[in-house]
Amino acid sequence: MKCIPIPRTESAHDYQLLIKRLLLHPIVDAPEQEIVYRNQVRHSYRQFRERVQRLAAALTRMGVKPGDTVAVMDWDSHRYLECFFAVPMIGAVLHTINVRFSAEQILFTIDHAEDDVLLVNSEFLPILEQIRGRIDTVRDFILLKGDEPHPHETTLTFTAEYEELLASTPPEFEFPDFDENTRATTFYTTGTTGMPKGVYFSHRQLVLHTLGVQAALCSSVVQGCLHRGDVYMPITPMFHVHAWGLPYVATSLGLKQVYPGRYAPDMLLELIEREKVTFSHCVPTILHMLLKHPHAAKIDLSNWKLIIGGAAMSQALCMAALGHGIDIFTGYGMSETCPILTLAQLTPDMLKLSPEEQAEIRCKTGLALPLVDLKVVGEGRDEMPRDGRSTGEIVVRAPWLTQGYLKDHKTSEKLWEGGYLHTGDVAVRDERGYVKITDRSKDVIKVGGEWISSLELEDIIAHHPAVAEVAVIGLPDEKWGERPLALVVPKPGTVVVEKQIQHHVREYADKGMISKQVVLLRTRMVEAIDKTSVGKINKVALRERYVY
Amino acid sequence: MKCIPIPRTESAHDYQLLIKRLLLHPIVDAPEQEIVYRNQVRHSYRQFRERVQRLAAALTRMGVKPGDTVAVMDWDSHRYLECFFAVPMIGAVLHTINVRFSAEQILFTIDHAEDDVLLVNSEFLPILEQIRGRIDTVRDFILLKGDEPHPHETTLTFTAEYEELLASTPPEFEFPDFDENTRATTFYTTGTTGMPKGVYFSHRQLVLHTLGVQAALCSSVVQGCLHRGDVYMPITPMFHVHAWGLPYVATSLGLKQVYPGRYAPDMLLELIEREKVTFSHCVPTILHMLLKHPHAAKIDLSNWKLIIGGAAMSQALCMAALGHGIDIFTGYGMSETCPILTLAQLTPDMLKLSPEEQAEIRCKTGLALPLVDLKVVGEGRDEMPRDGRSTGEIVVRAPWLTQGYLKDHKTSEKLWEGGYLHTGDVAVRDERGYVKITDRSKDVIKVGGEWISSLELEDIIAHHPAVAEVAVIGLPDEKWGERPLALVVPKPGTVVVEKQIQHHVREYADKGMISKQVVLLRTRMVEAIDKTSVGKINKVALRERYVY
Repeated sequence: MKCIPIPRTESAHDYQLLIKRLLLHPIVDAPEQEIVYRNQVRHSYRQFRERVQRLAAALTRMGVKPGDTVAVMDWDSHRYLECFFAVPMIGAVLHTINVRFSAEQILFTIDHAEDDVLLVNSEFLPILEQIRGRIDTVRDFILLKGDEPHPHETTLTFTAEYEELLASTPPEFEFPDFDENTRATTFYTTGTTGMPKGVYFSHRQLVLHTLGVQAALCSSVVQGCLHRGDVYMPITPMFHVHAWGLPYVATSLGLKQVYPGRYAPDMLLELIEREKVTFSHCVPTILHMLLKHPHAAKIDLSNWKLIIGGAAMSQALCMAALGHGIDIFTGYGMSETCPILTLAQLTPDMLKLSPEEQAEIRCKTGLALPLVDLKVVGEGRDEMPRDGRSTGEIVVRAPWLTQGYLKDHKTSEKLWEGGYLHTGDVAVRDERGYVKITDRSKDVIKVGGEWISSLELEDIIAHHPAVAEVAVIGLPDEKWGERPLALVVPKPGTVVVEKQIQHHVREYADKGMISKQVVLLRTRMVEAIDKTSVGKINKVALRERYVY
Repeated sequence: MKCIPIPRTESAHDYQLLIKRLLLHPIVDAPEQEIVYRNQVRHSYRQFRERVQRLAAALTRMGVKPGDTVAVMDWDSHRYLECFFAVPMIGAVLHTINVRFSAEQILFTIDHAEDDVLLVNSEFLPILEQIRGRIDTVRDFILLKGDEPHPHETTLTFTAEYEELLASTPPEFEFPDFDENTRATTFYTTGTTGMPKGVYFSHRQLVLHTLGVQAALCSSVVQGCLHRGDVYMPITPMFHVHAWGLPYVATSLGLKQVYPGRYAPDMLLELIEREKVTFSHCVPTILHMLLKHPHAAKIDLSNWKLIIGGAAMSQALCMAALGHGIDIFTGYGMSETCPILTLAQLTPDMLKLSPEEQAEIRCKTGLALPLVDLKVVGEGRDEMPRDGRSTGEIVVRAPWLTQGYLKDHKTSEKLWEGGYLHTGDVAVRDERGYVKITDRSKDVIKVGGEWISSLELEDIIAHHPAVAEVAVIGLPDEKWGERPLALVVPKPGTVVVEKQIQHHVREYADKGMISKQVVLLRTRMVEAIDKTSVGKINKVALRERYVY
């Protein structure tokens, strides 16, 4: 088809979608709005803007040019937020280093991303000491003072300390216009095999992700409805997919923002209570940790909207959260997708359902965001019927997906095979469009001719009163191809034996809630379950440990 | 500054912002949602999509190609909504003809836009009869059956009737991808001098306008908060700036939509009541007409959110609306700006103010939308202080402004002088960022060294109990340069003389609410005040009639 593009003549018409545009309004409309870091810092948006300008001016003075890469190693903080804006706004690329990687992996990502400047929280100096002398690309190190009482010794030479740098740089800085397709951020996915893979996002992609997420969250009738009166605190790390892009959403709406540093449960609960936090996002493990903390019972959580992602939420955890009055629902996405693709918000008629029925929807993967073209496809790439039963892979197009993996053409091509990004997640979709992930395609267990979802089986076993945590993997089997193996962490002070688990699971199979093949389940009691650096169950590690 | 654009390699990554994307979700997530036309038609979104596909297929079969122009002359209807989507979605340009123009003006716009196909409601056939034989560009006419009891006679030959065309075309149609900068719509501004001027918008611009308006409307804490449970009815014409772009907003949120045809007050009120309309937009004149209608007192308007635009809303009208419980607030924009630039929504703390204080804010021009870079500048283009007193011209950049006037390079250059679009509106801005238009730059009256806002003076005179309507223009004066002239329509059954108006105005001047120079006011009683084709006071016509 012939296209009739409007000729691009002058830059004024050709208004680019730049991250600086997200800052335009809040600093004008809500200059006194607060940004809080733990018990230590309380800035207004006015100060925030000034600090962003100082940082941009300082980096520029230090020689950072458009296209250079500025890396950060920090806990979730106001300083990190300042980098989220200042670095891309000068045309440089922000590399958010995963501080839970091993020192060798971190070195690999610094080299691979060709970082020019590195801002590092002093708490991470021991990591850098392990790789000292081998960091070749970085020409300037900037120190962020950590919260540790006794600073670590270091052999590194710092160009400056962050606060001194800001204090000594005048705040006058005019942020330039440039092409919206300019790269803004990069970070590395916590691959479970091989070295980490880099993904990257442009200004345009981050602005459109912000608008798409806003359109979905803010337009909800009641449930999960974000508005300009909310108070935001991220509880997924800022180094991982920009804390789901929600600091950009919160800033552009002019929300009060609270940054918790590390995720100590008592600090998190204290901040929620004192700063009146109403909107957060976390992985199930963190929520579990918060709810079981003794303080949780004492504070009012009934104004808290919480998006759960990163791993499937069990219905039991969802019910526990609803018991606290938390407005909890699932979000879905991945590093490659900026990340949010779907949200499991309820429509008004669904709010009339029982808590159990509601929980079932809140645990689903959810509805696609505006502008997201999401399909559940079979092996022939045809879309599966929306019947809540037919499984297929989730493939997606959207204005905010990574173009591929950094410097890795082959894997990028595979990711984008056939013009859609392949998530590797297996799902069903119901008549109303709600998607539910049943498994990672590589985590489906094939027993005889049947597929058993390891996620479903984990959910069922988690309902057993003596089970604290569970992971299910496939065990090679000569007769059946595969049979499921459950790795179970019993609750402290309880004893549970394989037979009990099998009996429990069979009850569900008898009710038709899972395949009868589940009788082939093997169970093994373990002390702990391997996790990846972002807190997900590491099935690759588990397979290595228990299968091979 | 050097830019580092991400190379655009494959189309899948390069996901274009196309109008079809706005349809993606509602038809999936809310297929049974309704689109209503008066008492006559009730379609589901599922049917709507099918009709859009049939229309697209029919136009394509008729030979409409990307870049062709398809014009429409209709009242606000479900059919118009179908054209809003189907025409741009095949890569053609939708020309929404202003049916209130004179026949000669309409002919001018058809010629100027080079319309290839014209869909016309039979009620407008008498207009086309006046220009028959002179419409050169149109190769196909399509008839839309009107609501008139006896169809007009016509000498035109129609290629098809709309409903028959749809019924005879299979709904299979795949909407293509193309460049987001492809022109989607064009229409002509109701210029008060000379022939109408064409403005034009691309797919990208309409999608971003939709997202920007959503972000502003949906994120409000309470007041003016749009959500997916709302029922939408436009009461500004679809031919004029796409009914403020709100049919796109409503569709993309999957709202129930109600189209009223012509604006008969009893039909509008009946639809509001019966269809439970909760969200509309209109000009002050229409609201005035609705509120004074006897039915208005009998129906519940307290769930109605209403954006007022097109002309300044008087505080008296705002108070009357608040008295009915209507959540009323101002929106600002113009044909050249797609249109919405600002909305006068209240923050939660403002809801504690008295109704009078609230009304003052609701009557302001409002806060700039997300992504809108709006400035109030002095003659040297420097930004004026945000003190609520310093006046300057509103200039703007945003992702959804017309690049200029169609085939009119000279005027386009003037519109975009200095890289900002010049609105010609004079405004002040307060500390909180709220903009308030004090006048059109050409409507400011310069009395001696002082500027008197004709809008402010109109508002003051409108408060006089015997005044039904008023317009103020500048009268050339040898001594003072200009002096104000008020054209007053007295309320039926009342008599008002110049002295009363002067006395009334002086009271405000004595309180310091307007310049003392206002004592120079002249008043003239008139039977009616000239309006433009979109219902605004036509000051150019008034000047011609009463001054020259």
